[in-house]
Amino acid sequence: MAVYTEVSDDALRAFLAEYDLGVLLAYRGIAEGVENSNYSLRTSAGDFILTLYEKRVDPADLPWFLGLMEHLARRGITCPLPVQGHDGFSLRMLCDRHAAITTFLPGVWPRRVQAWHCAPLGAALAALHLAGAGYAPTRANALGPAGWAPLLARSLADGGAGADALLAGLGEELRAALDRILAHWPAALPAGHIHADLFPDNVFFLDRKVSGLIDFYFAATDILAYDVAVCLNAWCFEPDMSFNVTRGRALLHAYSATRSLSAAELAALPVLCQGAAIRFALTRLYDWINTPPGALVTRKDPLEYVRRLRFHLTARGPDAYGL
Amino acid sequence: MAVYTEVSDDALRAFLAEYDLGVLLAYRGIAEGVENSNYSLRTSAGDFILTLYEKRVDPADLPWFLGLMEHLARRGITCPLPVQGHDGFSLRMLCDRHAAITTFLPGVWPRRVQAWHCAPLGAALAALHLAGAGYAPTRANALGPAGWAPLLARSLADGGAGADALLAGLGEELRAALDRILAHWPAALPAGHIHADLFPDNVFFLDRKVSGLIDFYFAATDILAYDVAVCLNAWCFEPDMSFNVTRGRALLHAYSATRSLSAAELAALPVLCQGAAIRFALTRLYDWINTPPGALVTRKDPLEYVRRLRFHLTARGPDAYGL
Repeated sequence: MAVYTEVSDDALRAFLAEYDLGVLLAYRGIAEGVENSNYSLRTSAGDFILTLYEKRVDPADLPWFLGLMEHLARRGITCPLPVQGHDGFSLRMLCDRHAAITTFLPGVWPRRVQAWHCAPLGAALAALHLAGAGYAPTRANALGPAGWAPLLARSLADGGAGADALLAGLGEELRAALDRILAHWPAALPAGHIHADLFPDNVFFLDRKVSGLIDFYFAATDILAYDVAVCLNAWCFEPDMSFNVTRGRALLHAYSATRSLSAAELAALPVLCQGAAIRFALTRLYDWINTPPGALVTRKDPLEYVRRLRFHLTARGPDAYGL
Repeated sequence: MAVYTEVSDDALRAFLAEYDLGVLLAYRGIAEGVENSNYSLRTSAGDFILTLYEKRVDPADLPWFLGLMEHLARRGITCPLPVQGHDGFSLRMLCDRHAAITTFLPGVWPRRVQAWHCAPLGAALAALHLAGAGYAPTRANALGPAGWAPLLARSLADGGAGADALLAGLGEELRAALDRILAHWPAALPAGHIHADLFPDNVFFLDRKVSGLIDFYFAATDILAYDVAVCLNAWCFEPDMSFNVTRGRALLHAYSATRSLSAAELAALPVLCQGAAIRFALTRLYDWINTPPGALVTRKDPLEYVRRLRFHLTARGPDAYGL
């Protein structure tokens, strides 16, 4: 459910008057997404997406996100292009929320990932990393390694009862894994702007090609290969949580063909994948414990990422991922 | 929240192969609506709505609903036109649900009703009633007067505790009102096919004209003026539950200009409005009592319609509605 803020037609028309987008023809709330309110918007100028930023997004970060999207779109990455109003700004207020209009991207995200998705995905991710290079502002990754220990501490603030209710011993397991991950975290790998959340619902396909990358609201400046690790987690596991090396190989080969991975990056894949797995395990665990039962948001199962984490803890090198 | 059934892209492509709609370009879940799962669908042939019928809709009724929509659309009513597959049928199965594709209608439904909406609404309702005349099959109104006593009984099956928890004495108030309404229910007013749920979110506007009527899944064969009464309830009350006679007058005048209301229909307006108010009070009350706290559906307040009911019980004739 992704409409938290109901926008009246009057408010929307007043908002649209700030743009050169013609007259409003239709708008509908979009059910996908969990962080912000999204509407599909049709005006006489075409199709757009209207996003109202809800409380999880820090308004201070919005100019960075929108600036990155504009930078990437101008460099040929098929991501939403923020639309500027008469005043030259793409960010303004609507219904007491920060809001922006971006271009609509055609395409369909894969509900069931297949091996053939992973090569175009890998190539698109590498192209994203290369295109981001010229964007000068940086954003620290709040959900990167420095954020994991505080996040775990907040989830275990009840003495670990909530975590243990989900799975006996879970608090201890995560604490031990996190210690190990942080002790081995690579100090000096190539960094740049990463998407950091490139899950299947953020990648559109048309004709077996990537037609769009969306939802840059976790993007940050961090280790590039960590973004690869996020994708290996999100795209390459079977429903039974076994790792599909065919997908992993396709993703890594296609990525490397556009931006080659160094020996140090390849060697770090296991710990980077461990880090990516624990990052999603931790945020899901925190949400699991702190989402009231009556909430409209569907809680995601933290254990799916605990099981991925266990796999990565057994990986000895890049061969575990199909190389 | 209106996506109960998640449709995979593979399943959707296989489904679309039954139609002459070209290739799939995009689809998104629509957040509006509470009864069925709705997707906005873009193919190389244009824009459409895909609806999966969830458990509240009796599959046996679907051919009647789709047949009515097709009948109305062919007679110039701007309602969704069911799209037929290669086999000539517009109803088939998808993800274990009955499903249909209909045409997309541009327009915006009014989040905040204003007086100027009510004349085009009244005219559109009358046109709908006239256009429905040639559709021979009938459908009994399960949520018409014959259904209200059983519905109240089910809501009071706990001895009235659930109703009284919402408002002390509510069960008794509804029982007394229902007795009075059924005792005065008009026996012989003009009947035909009614929408029966023409709330603002089912009416699209463009350029101050009605551009679309949607959601015919409560439609039935019943007293035509009862449909007017549903609209007087849904469109003509202020947020403080006072009746806005300017809106009522506009609605009734515009309706009458297209299909004149007889003296008997006008005289029956108070009891028809009482019936319409108790119908929505009763279904909301039933849902209120029977919706588990963790459900994804937002419960609607039954008391909004209890307060409307109280107003209608004081009405002595059509002048209470602005005539």
